[in-house]
Amino acid sequence: MDEIIYGKNSVMEALISGQREINKIIISKNLHSDTKLNKIKELAQQNGIVFQFVAKEKFIPYAEYNHQGIIAFVSPIKYTDLDEFLEQPHQNESIIILDGIEDAHNVGAIIRTAVCAGVSGIIIPSRRNAQINSIAEKTSAGAINHIPIIKVNSLTNAVEKLKKSDWWIIATDASAKDNYYDVNYNNMNFAVIMGAEHAGVSKSLLKASDFVVKIPMLKDFNSLNVSNALAVIIFEAVRQKLTRK
Amino acid sequence: MDEIIYGKNSVMEALISGQREINKIIISKNLHSDTKLNKIKELAQQNGIVFQFVAKEKFIPYAEYNHQGIIAFVSPIKYTDLDEFLEQPHQNESIIILDGIEDAHNVGAIIRTAVCAGVSGIIIPSRRNAQINSIAEKTSAGAINHIPIIKVNSLTNAVEKLKKSDWWIIATDASAKDNYYDVNYNNMNFAVIMGAEHAGVSKSLLKASDFVVKIPMLKDFNSLNVSNALAVIIFEAVRQKLTRK
Repeated sequence: MDEIIYGKNSVMEALISGQREINKIIISKNLHSDTKLNKIKELAQQNGIVFQFVAKEKFIPYAEYNHQGIIAFVSPIKYTDLDEFLEQPHQNESIIILDGIEDAHNVGAIIRTAVCAGVSGIIIPSRRNAQINSIAEKTSAGAINHIPIIKVNSLTNAVEKLKKSDWWIIATDASAKDNYYDVNYNNMNFAVIMGAEHAGVSKSLLKASDFVVKIPMLKDFNSLNVSNALAVIIFEAVRQKLTRK
Repeated sequence: MDEIIYGKNSVMEALISGQREINKIIISKNLHSDTKLNKIKELAQQNGIVFQFVAKEKFIPYAEYNHQGIIAFVSPIKYTDLDEFLEQPHQNESIIILDGIEDAHNVGAIIRTAVCAGVSGIIIPSRRNAQINSIAEKTSAGAINHIPIIKVNSLTNAVEKLKKSDWWIIATDASAKDNYYDVNYNNMNFAVIMGAEHAGVSKSLLKASDFVVKIPMLKDFNSLNVSNALAVIIFEAVRQKLTRK
């Protein structure tokens, strides 16, 4: 299970010290507002940490802890800052952007495949995407410790920053005209955006992309699991790299 | 949960009628041998159905059923016979052979990807491989209903039959010299053998294969999840098919 910090005082101290990477804070809807709670909300907002007001039933799994209606979920890893990542030199590298992947198993499987393919980083949004929790850690087979995970508040801003730093943006969409193997992945830094299991890549990100590609299906059936789709695309880039003349 | 048939009489009748596809029979170690039980074992053996003697704790999840120490697990699908499959005409087709995949989630994910890639069939052994159960069905996103699943008692025999019918056999192995993209997948019927999550493809099957290939890793890290590895290989075959001159 994920590591947690519970109770108003402990959560507030964790936010003040900034030593722990917090994925999310849940607060009981029944909890009365007071100075400490306001301070927690303020600090969370400043640090881009999501907090949610939830029904008290959400606390049942944590009954053994004296949580006082507030729990912070600690990330198993330290996140990397996008600006710091972009300040380092990059040549013919790739990163993966996760846009609304709901299942932590898929997040873990994507990271595992990305590491095998020599990808340089993973960008995840702080909202509307499964976070790096113990499930993602386990499914990644430990890969999350071998690649920088970059958490951002806005994927739109992140994509703009990448473009300004001369990264090419590739989005996947089932209705794209071009196939993923039509792209020449050599001689550029590129980011591949993988969309939510059902909804796909957000419209605004599709619009901001330099390439929109599909994986052609030989049978008119549903679609690939998102980690398998990423495997197909990123290993085509590996193939091109290893076979270029 | 999987559909079950329980109690000596019901299990025996199911075996006699042959109308239901049974994945496995579990029998309590505490169950005394009698004519019915002997008949069940005999019929199971004749039909290549695995039966296991297990501790009575294994029956705890089925306490609400009057199981009398014997349960048969019913497959959600009807299996296809290899001989019947091979009697049909095949041209430039592919099949996937699962050699000891332990996790039913992986079996389901492989089948989903195989259907998307237009694969013609999946071969699974009756022992030492996760069976087609409700987990595999769910993970496949319904794909198991769109492809023949061929169950065999011996993969070695199955591979021999395939070779006699002019199918080419491709096995994956991390220490192979050739890369998966060095194979020309066009103009042949081919079978790809995917090995167990940790042990890989069995030695005897590696030996019987026409090609042994690896997926080159750009980082010295563990290896790909088996369904992602299959996705990389089978979509390279799709790419070759769609881009051949």
